[in-house]
Formats: sequence, structure tokens, C-alpha cells
Amino acid sequence: MIPVGSSYPIRIDLFSDTITRPTKAMRQAMANAEVGDEQKGEDPSTNELVALTRELLGKEEAVFLPSGTMCNQIAYALHCRPGDAILVDETAHSLCHEETGAPALAGAFYRPIKADHGVFSVAQLEAALRPEGRSFARNAVLSIEQPSNLGGGTCWSLEGITSVTNMARSHQIKTHMDGARMLNAVVATGVSARDFCAPFDSVWLDLSKGLGAPIGAVLAGDADFINEAWRLKQRWGGSMRQSGIVAAAGTFALRNNVDRLADDHGNARLLAELLSVHPQISIDPLTVQTNIVLFDLVDSPVTAAVLVDRLIQKSGVRMGAFGPSTIRAVTHLDVDSGDIRIAADAIRALLDEIHSMPTSQRSF
Amino acid sequence: MIPVGSSYPIRIDLFSDTITRPTKAMRQAMANAEVGDEQKGEDPSTNELVALTRELLGKEEAVFLPSGTMCNQIAYALHCRPGDAILVDETAHSLCHEETGAPALAGAFYRPIKADHGVFSVAQLEAALRPEGRSFARNAVLSIEQPSNLGGGTCWSLEGITSVTNMARSHQIKTHMDGARMLNAVVATGVSARDFCAPFDSVWLDLSKGLGAPIGAVLAGDADFINEAWRLKQRWGGSMRQSGIVAAAGTFALRNNVDRLADDHGNARLLAELLSVHPQISIDPLTVQTNIVLFDLVDSPVTAAVLVDRLIQKSGVRMGAFGPSTIRAVTHLDVDSGDIRIAADAIRALLDEIHSMPTSQRSF
Amino acid sequence: MIPVGSSYPIRIDLFSDTITRPTKAMRQAMANAEVGDEQKGEDPSTNELVALTRELLGKEEAVFLPSGTMCNQIAYALHCRPGDAILVDETAHSLCHEETGAPALAGAFYRPIKADHGVFSVAQLEAALRPEGRSFARNAVLSIEQPSNLGGGTCWSLEGITSVTNMARSHQIKTHMDGARMLNAVVATGVSARDFCAPFDSVWLDLSKGLGAPIGAVLAGDADFINEAWRLKQRWGGSMRQSGIVAAAGTFALRNNVDRLADDHGNARLLAELLSVHPQISIDPLTVQTNIVLFDLVDSPVTAAVLVDRLIQKSGVRMGAFGPSTIRAVTHLDVDSGDIRIAADAIRALLDEIHSMPTSQRSF
Amino acid sequence: MIPVGSSYPIRIDLFSDTITRPTKAMRQAMANAEVGDEQKGEDPSTNELVALTRELLGKEEAVFLPSGTMCNQIAYALHCRPGDAILVDETAHSLCHEETGAPALAGAFYRPIKADHGVFSVAQLEAALRPEGRSFARNAVLSIEQPSNLGGGTCWSLEGITSVTNMARSHQIKTHMDGARMLNAVVATGVSARDFCAPFDSVWLDLSKGLGAPIGAVLAGDADFINEAWRLKQRWGGSMRQSGIVAAAGTFALRNNVDRLADDHGNARLLAELLSVHPQISIDPLTVQTNIVLFDLVDSPVTAAVLVDRLIQKSGVRMGAFGPSTIRAVTHLDVDSGDIRIAADAIRALLDEIHSMPTSQRSF
Repeated sequence: MIPVGSSYPIRIDLFSDTITRPTKAMRQAMANAEVGDEQKGEDPSTNELVALTRELLGKEEAVFLPSGTMCNQIAYALHCRPGDAILVDETAHSLCHEETGAPALAGAFYRPIKADHGVFSVAQLEAALRPEGRSFARNAVLSIEQPSNLGGGTCWSLEGITSVTNMARSHQIKTHMDGARMLNAVVATGVSARDFCAPFDSVWLDLSKGLGAPIGAVLAGDADFINEAWRLKQRWGGSMRQSGIVAAAGTFALRNNVDRLADDHGNARLLAELLSVHPQISIDPLTVQTNIVLFDLVDSPVTAAVLVDRLIQKSGVRMGAFGPSTIRAVTHLDVDSGDIRIAADAIRALLDEIHSMPTSQRSF
Repeated sequence: MIPVGSSYPIRIDLFSDTITRPTKAMRQAMANAEVGDEQKGEDPSTNELVALTRELLGKEEAVFLPSGTMCNQIAYALHCRPGDAILVDETAHSLCHEETGAPALAGAFYRPIKADHGVFSVAQLEAALRPEGRSFARNAVLSIEQPSNLGGGTCWSLEGITSVTNMARSHQIKTHMDGARMLNAVVATGVSARDFCAPFDSVWLDLSKGLGAPIGAVLAGDADFINEAWRLKQRWGGSMRQSGIVAAAGTFALRNNVDRLADDHGNARLLAELLSVHPQISIDPLTVQTNIVLFDLVDSPVTAAVLVDRLIQKSGVRMGAFGPSTIRAVTHLDVDSGDIRIAADAIRALLDEIHSMPTSQRSF
Repeated sequence: MIPVGSSYPIRIDLFSDTITRPTKAMRQAMANAEVGDEQKGEDPSTNELVALTRELLGKEEAVFLPSGTMCNQIAYALHCRPGDAILVDETAHSLCHEETGAPALAGAFYRPIKADHGVFSVAQLEAALRPEGRSFARNAVLSIEQPSNLGGGTCWSLEGITSVTNMARSHQIKTHMDGARMLNAVVATGVSARDFCAPFDSVWLDLSKGLGAPIGAVLAGDADFINEAWRLKQRWGGSMRQSGIVAAAGTFALRNNVDRLADDHGNARLLAELLSVHPQISIDPLTVQTNIVLFDLVDSPVTAAVLVDRLIQKSGVRMGAFGPSTIRAVTHLDVDSGDIRIAADAIRALLDEIHSMPTSQRSF
Repeated sequence: MIPVGSSYPIRIDLFSDTITRPTKAMRQAMANAEVGDEQKGEDPSTNELVALTRELLGKEEAVFLPSGTMCNQIAYALHCRPGDAILVDETAHSLCHEETGAPALAGAFYRPIKADHGVFSVAQLEAALRPEGRSFARNAVLSIEQPSNLGGGTCWSLEGITSVTNMARSHQIKTHMDGARMLNAVVATGVSARDFCAPFDSVWLDLSKGLGAPIGAVLAGDADFINEAWRLKQRWGGSMRQSGIVAAAGTFALRNNVDRLADDHGNARLLAELLSVHPQISIDPLTVQTNIVLFDLVDSPVTAAVLVDRLIQKSGVRMGAFGPSTIRAVTHLDVDSGDIRIAADAIRALLDEIHSMPTSQRSF
């Protein structure tokens, strides 16, 4: 359980955009950051990041937290009472990768919604509801992920968001947006962050994914909500001291690394195109909207897990197995189009090599 | 509730050692830190800090966390089941300043022990126990604070620790040490951190107090315990990404800022001596063992809250009111003996000034 | 939300076997029961019921509780830590009708298993497991329902139970049997209660369903488990005082009302046969193993909800709508074969009447 | 932990009024009770009890529950969010005997108020409050016990209740009354139950103490509160089926056993008077307001625990040790003034006998 890292050298890391390392300029911003005790409101760099995010998202107040997981879980804990249900796409990060959070921290549980690539309609939302009754949970909060991670980076349209949040509000259901990669959706769709955020009671964006900051996320909402969020930040141990060191990296990222997300999207599309021509890979490049490429192996003699394992051994290219025959690759600021071409070549060559092996030698 | 900071300029800040700012050299260490994704075990600087702490504390395994509060609360959540009691000095930080944590996060509650300056005997521990029974909580964990914060920086002796932890173990009670300022106790007593830590199932030390790092604490115990702690770190949102940026500051602090804690202790003793001569201040300098000075106002025409408020307005010296007539001052690496003399002069002069005022003008 | 009862007189109540009323003889047993304070272990009638159940189920110890829901939830709370998963058929009563319980009371959550009529294979169980990992829940307990309620009263075979519980044990997963109607399965299969219970860490049977007692259920397991269950019984307010009054009804039921469950099974089969001949009803009588008849409307012009509503209005026969076109009828000691014929006639006649109506008049 | 009862025959049981056994007439009422499924609102006897209690307490709605503990804990869980504080006298039953409940069931905790015999003033309440702040709990509910059990049956005056509940309301703190023996206070003070209950958001009375019913308590409040209480009743397993069997005993008790509580009070006063004359017993008979006699041993050669143990062995009189030298005796409908005289004689004789023993023989 204690993480041990990869035992092979990694040259091109497409496992996730969480692996981005701060650049020299960002490191300089951190080294120069003016700091104080954030718990007393005396950290100027944290205050600056919070003010910037408030403005960007169009929310009354915001709070800096050590991770996106804490953003999701604090919002759920505030929107729910014990025994309440959280309505969420069945592939959502919170349901799939924070499954123990809401039950343990809020006594609440996830009620999955069947969706298409992480995006659901009002009808799909309604199908997930259960009748009112003493034995049934109150539907406390609707949570969407923009863009959907395990849905392959698919973006919610503003119309889609409006329709499901309207429906939620009409049922007194709070609304929450997991905006881990929200700015990718902003860049991909041209819709402003403010417009995407307006219908939600709580929203957050992650600074340590494609934006390239090392640590942290910012949760936003109205002032009362953030007041309460501060209580939980303190209670759960998310209050830090001179957090300005890392907040400065977040501010740097918001000022310098947003527009360039378009490059990551271009690289993701490129990777999809390069992969799509291989007969044992199934991916429609047109479905790649942001920086995530989710592709399937077809008639492959090996599982996704085996393939990604050999890929890293052989070529130093890291991707992730997300199902028996599904692989995820994520582009970000540490890879360029040259890396993408190398990575695509590596996986295609590996598939060809395996294909050409006698079956008896494929015992990986 | 949203923290707003002090509205007056602060020249000498004795409010807490949490306000220490990273030095230039520490900032350089952060700027140069080699980093990776700590959740994959791939952050070399975090791994280095963890290894160093493991060695320092003599524990099998350790984990970096964003705060000491998270260290305490994860340990309690692992040692307790819902409904269990945490035995703790009635002035302990966890009971007094994390009072909502254990109930909300673990369904457990604090059972206060009456102690002297935060240090209790076996007899005082036994007096806090309740009989076995279906209606009574299981005593799950004994938690001590080394040194005691609200006890005025008083250190536990190794003998004291041995006797209460032996008693706990004989009752199948787990043992935990809140070592927020443990290295201050090490420096003050000459006992090694390893010896202090040996009797405990879980221990932690804070990097962002007198050691001067901006963010973080390290929790240590056996490998199984830390495996489970990683689950909660992940669940609660304490998992970060390139945490090496701030872990590097912790490593720097452990390598450079431990021995100098003796200076803080000298300064605290000096402050106590300078204050003790004033007729309206009660403090025995000989009781000051580490970097905390807890003194009382005697026959003062104003409360502690009013005094510290006027002190900062008038002289830019910040201390904290910790009771109607009790004030706390904490020394640390951002203040030297010259600052201490200025601070002592300021508070004595202020007391004299108030004393000399006609009563009618004392309506602060 | 405050329950209001049916607004129409009910002549034949097939809604559930929970509606059974105590007979004259059972009432006499209650009126004569010797009682004391059960919390002190001084209630002879409760002690007698507990001893009888222990013997019947072949478990070391047992405890009387006010409901089957409390049996399930106490067992889950003891087998789980916060954040753990409960593996359970997706139609199980606990998941479907106690969905708020495990999250709110134990911080645990249900992980659904896809099954056939509530009974699943090792392969189906394995398909529900998730990989080990810090972000994933520990699979703490496997819970089966014998017989399955929403699976139409289908019984688990002893072989089926053995295979899934063996698999669970090999993964250090605790095993629990929701035996709300376990004695129906015993009577239907000829397997003893002891044999059915042997593989489980915890089991319970309900006294207030087909057995006809007014209140209560008995949870059984080893002595340590029941010791802990008593703690939760006390904590949650399930400890009563002179519980012998109602425990005496339970003892009476176990002594007098077990063998006659075969009549209920015969009546259920009879009902299925009588209904199966109607063209708008789909039910295979051979699948009816115990006292539950779950049938579907086919090409019906009305929903199940409308049909059961009109059925009670028109004929005083009450059944339950369990889906858009699914109806459940449950036989028990307050209905005999004559009632079954009347009920079958009533629903068939109602379907014919609706079928013969002009569409314009079907606006119920 | 599994309760085992007394190993000696008990002739006169003054341990608690919880041990009262239903009379013949009450048993007859149960045997004849009209019943249905209370979860469907179809149990006429439960509905009758609820209506009667609503009227008696002057509250909009009420719900029957299996115990007073469940009443307290459901109210706390509804009034609190995780991390909230419950303000309560430090000797209150909920704090002392349900200490694991609020933390485990609501994530809340008890904040003790120093009081006199269980009754506190506004000043004592204020002294227990802590400053507002992110690290401090919200004071969610003020809970009083009327009369105080461990305060020796002392009654709150209407004025006292009014002042502390007014103060609570001005701080947005909910108010709750543990009325386990509320009707004893009504009989003792002449104030109506309606007047006592009016200032509270939630109140309950126990049917299984001095009122003599075997099982149950009724929680009352406004309709919204009781709607929510029904959710928790269902969730925690407090929903029963034909609960009318035991509810009928409650109705019988409210109709027949209230006025006679005055006899219990007379007997308690008589016991106090008879005990007060003994030189080794300290009790002021004038402080005995209801049916609880809490007396102290003075200069006794034996502890309270030893004395009550020998008392039951020697004379079949059972009392309870509630401290090293404190004994509690409770009067109720199963003891009359003759029993009281026998009990007083027995304990006085026993004390004399021990006193006259050579010290060497007192090694009990």
C-alpha cells in the first residue's frame, strides 16, 4: 500500500497530468512568494490566489485546499447530512476513486447515474432518483465532473449543465461541479469559467493537473458556504501555515498556463489520430475534446495491463490501464508533439511485435 | 469566520511559532527540490524527508501530511472505532483546538485527564478512566503532548512517559504522542527523539512551527499503521502531488534548525525573567522549559484580551490572550534577544501607563 | 412522511407477511410472560427466546433486538470500519430499503453484486470486487439474504452458500446472513437452520414476519460478536426493559408457527398458478419456492401502481407495486387458500374489466 | 458484557424504577390491544398512544420508540451536524450513560455544564460556552434532564427552564428535554407537562420507568421534526410492526399510573427520613423531591459498592452504588411504605453490624 513508484525509467509520461513538474519560472515564483500564516488570513500569496480564483469563477468566496479530493469531500460533507445520497455519473472520479470518502466523512453515499462518456441528460438523472420515503435517502447533491475524466475528457455543454442543474434545483438538490480540469473545458469549448460555474452551489479547480502547479486546489461558492468549508479545512487538517509558497505556483499557473492547454488538446488529438490507424486500436479522434485519450485494444493478444507494463519497460512511455482492454493517455505541459509521435510509434510497434510473436512466446 | 489577519503592522510576532517564515536558504532548497507525484511514491524529496524522519524518530515507517492536525486526527481515527474514548490532558491541543475532529472524523470523543501543566501521573490517568460496561466507551488511545503547549511548554520526562504508556498498554490502550514541538523537548531535556518515541504506537512532529518550514508534519509508526494512514491521507484529501517542494523545506529544517531551538528557549527564559519583575505580572522563569511563556496578569485593570490588543496597536508586538488574565508568548527563529527586550519593555510600559491612567480613561 | 395507512378497508392483505397479527394463543403467552429488566439480564422470557434461537441456529450467543433492520445494521457496523464496503446482491433489502443505514451508522457503503433472483455465484461475486488500493474500499463483509425477498422468495442452496462464503473467507471478508425469512427457506428446502447458519459470522431471523410475532428479531454469532452487539444495542437505543412481553411471542412463534410455513408456500404456489393463466400476467409457478409471489403485468394498459390501487378500492385485496409493471404478493398465517382464490379472482377480473374499457375511460 | 442478573434473590428492588413489572390490568390491556403494522401507520394502539402523548405534552406530533435512549439520540442527531456540541449538565444520563451515542451516531459530542444537583443557571450555562471560531464546535443543542436523575431527582422550576432556554434560543441553540421521569416532576411541582414542554424543540417521556409499562418512550416536537425522527427510527431499526401490544401498556400507564407517582415520592421522602437518623448516612430528606434518594456514607468502614452487595445478600434489598460512598435508591409502583421500612431497617442494621465488627473481620 505504501506507494513505490515505477521501477523503470520513464521518458515520456502520459499516465496523468498530475505528474507535471513545476517549471523554472514557477519555481522562481514560489521562491519569491511573500508569505504569512494562512490560518490567520495573513498569507498574501494565498490571499492573492483566492482573489484571482474568485474572480475567474465568478464566485463570492473561495478557499485554498491541499487537494481536489478535499474540495469534493468538503463540498459533499457540507451539502449532505448523514444518510443522504450524492447523485453522480457512475464513472465520476469521486464515485470511482474517492468511494470511501463520502461514506466515512459525511455518512453519505454515491447514487450512480448511467451516462454517456460521463455526461448525462435530465432523463438519465431522473432514472437514477428513487421515490420519496422514510427508507430512502434524500437526494442532497448533484455532482458533475467537467470535463469527465473516465469519460475520456468529454465536456459538458452549457445547455447540458443548465438542464440538469435546473432539474436539481427544482427538487431542492444542491449542485456541485468537480472542476479538476475545468479550464480544459473552458479552452476546448470557448465558454467562460464564470458561465460554467454560475449554476453551481460549489465548484473547484485543480492547480496540480494540466496547469502544472505542484500542490493544491481552490474551492469556491458563496461566503456562507466557504465559511463552513473553512471549518472543515481546519477540522480535517487541511489548514496549512505559509501556504503562499505553493499558492504562488497556483497564481503563476492561472496567469501563464491556461491558454497553452490548447496545445495539450492538440497533442491529445494528434495521439488519437496516430493510434487510430492501427488495426488493434479503437479510438475515434473526433471524440477527443480535451487532453485525455481513452482507447481500446481490439483483438489484442494481451490485456491493457500487460501492454502498458511492457510499453514502459521497452520504451519508457507510461500510460495507464483503465480496464481489461482500455488504456488512458493524458497530455500535459511536460510533453510536446514530438513526444506524442514517439509514444504513438512505441505502442504501435509493440502491438506489432506482440502480434508477430508465436503464441507460445506471449506468456508475459 | 474567514480569517482576516491583524489590522495593525506587526514588528515582533510572539503569537506563535507557527508564523515563522522560510529563510532564503530554505527557499532555495525548495526551489531546487527534485519532485514527482507523491501519490505514486515518485517524489524523491518527500521520500527523503520521510526516510530522515523515520530514522530520527526510530520508527519503521512514516508519512508526510499537510498539517499536524491531520496527524493527530488520522492517528485517532485509526486507533479508535466509533464510540471509543481518547484519553488526553484537559488542556491538550487536540481536545481544545481540534475538539470537533475526533467526533466528526472517527465518531470518538475526548476524555479529559486532569493534569499539572499538561503532564499527568498514572494516578491522574487512572482517575479519568470509567468502569467497563456496555454503556461506557472503550478507552482506545492515550494521547500525550510533548511538550505541552497550553501547559506552558512543559516537557514530559522519559520516566513520566514510560509510566503512563506502560499503564495504557496493560489496559490494551494504544498510545499516541502529539509531537508538534517534540524537538524542543529533545533539545531542552537532552533525551533523544528515539527514546521519547519508543513507547508510542504513533508519533508525529511538526515542521512548520519552530523548525521554520512553511507547511507539513510527519506521522510515524509501524508499517501497518502507516499503510492505513495512507488510506486516510488519500480519503481526507491530504494526498498531494509534487509535495517535494515543501518536503524539501522540512528536510532543510531537520538538518539546520534543530540545535538552534536552544536559542528560542534562552529567549523564552529571558522574556520570563524580564516580565517577572513587573508587579502586575506573575511568572516563574524557572518553569519555562522550552519556547513558550505563559504568564498571568495580577491585579491588572484590564483583561488579557484588551492588553494584547493595545500592545499590538501601540508597539507592534503581538502576543496571544489565552484566558481572562493569561497571555502566551512564543519564541522562534524570527525573533532574537534584542526583540525580546523590546517586547518586554513594551508590555511593561503599557501596564504602567494603564496603571497610571485615571480609572475613567481605562474604558478600552 | 408520517405513515397514514390505507384509506380503504382491507379484507385480504397480501402486501407483506409483516402485517400478521398475533393470535389469541400468542397473546395469552405474552400476557402470562414472566419478565424482568432485560438490560440486567433479568428477563426470563427474553433469556428463553435467546437460548432457543441459539440452539436453533447453532450459534454460541444471541441477542434480542426490536427489528431485523437493527440486526443487519449492527452486524454491518461491527464487521466494518468507516470507509469499508458491504458486498450484497443489488436487490437485497439492506441495499434497497436500508440504503441510508450503513453509510450513516457505520460510514460504510453497499457494493452491489449482480445476481439472479437475489442469488449470486462466485463469479458474480468476483465481478463486483475492485482492485486493492489506497483509494478503494476494503471489502469488509459479504451479506446474503436467505431467501431473497425482492428476488421473489428464491432460496440459496447450501452449496451456493458454501461456495460464496468460502471465497469470502479466503479474502478475509466477514460473512453475514439476513435471515428475515430464513425459516421459510428451511421449510422449503429441508436444510436445517444450523446448516444454513454454520458458514456465517453473523445471522439473524425475524419473528414478526411469517412467524406471526408482533415485534422483534434475534441476531446470533459467537460470544465476542454478541458482546459487541450488546454495546450497539445499548448505544442505538435498542435496549428495552421488560422485553419478555414480546420475546414470549417470539418463543411461541418458534414453537408453533414454523412447520405451518409450508401452508404459506402452498398458498403462494396456488396464487401463482391461478394468476399464471391470465394472458396479461407473467409468472412461472415453478419458480415460487416460498411465500413470495412476484409477477409481471404484460401488455397491461395500466401500471402496477394503478392496478394495486384499484384492486384495494374495488375488492379490499392489498398487494404491492414493486416496479412499473411488477407486483408482489406475500402469503402468511392470516390468509388461507380460500382467500388466495378470492384474491386471484379479484385481480384477474379487474384486469379483464380494464381491458374491456374504452381507452378514453382508462384515465385512472 | 452479556448481562447476567443478580445471583441472589431480590425481595425489595430499589435499584431503579426501570424494573417495574406490568400489572395484571396492564397485561390485560396488552392482550386485548388492537394492532396493525406501525410502519404503515396502521397500528391503532400505537396511534392512540401517540395522540394521547401529543395532547399531554402539547406538541404537534410524536413518535413511539423502543427506548428513551433512542429518543435522546435521535433528537441529538437531528439537532446536530457532525462536529457540533451538545450542552448538557455534567451528571446528565445522556453524557454519563449514553456517552458513546452522540459521537458515534451524530459525530457530535457532549460539552458538560457544571450544575447543582443537575440544575444549572444561565451563568453556569454561559461559563460552559466557548468562543466562536473555526476550531471550536457550534453549540447546537441545549439538553436538560427533568428531573435530574444523578442529581437525586431534583426538579427544574419553570423559571429555571425559561431562563436557560431563552438564552439558548438567543444563540440559535436548539433545546431538548430528556423527560425520562418528567411526569414525576409534574406531580411533584404541580406545573403541567404542557408548560414544562412548551419551551423545547424536542421532548420525550419514558413509559417504562415509574409509569410501569414494559417497553418504550415517546418523542415529541413539531411535525417536521417528527417526520425526520421517523427517518432515523427506520434507519436505526427502531421501527417495529405490531407495536400496539406494548403501546397499549403505555396508554394504560398514562391513564392510570400518573397520579400515583405521588406515593413513590412519599415513599422516597420516608426512606430519606428513616436513613437520615443513622450517624453514618448523610441525606437531607427535604432535598428529596421525587422518587430518587441519593445518599452518602459518612465515615463508613466499607465502600458503597461493598455495602450494596452485602445488603442484597443479607436482606434481598437491592440499591445501587453510584460512587465510592454514594448509594441510590429509587421508589416505584412495585414497592410500598412497608417495603421502605424493611429496606431502611436492613441497611441501618447492616451498617451497625459492620461498625461493631472487629476491623480484622471487615475484609469483605
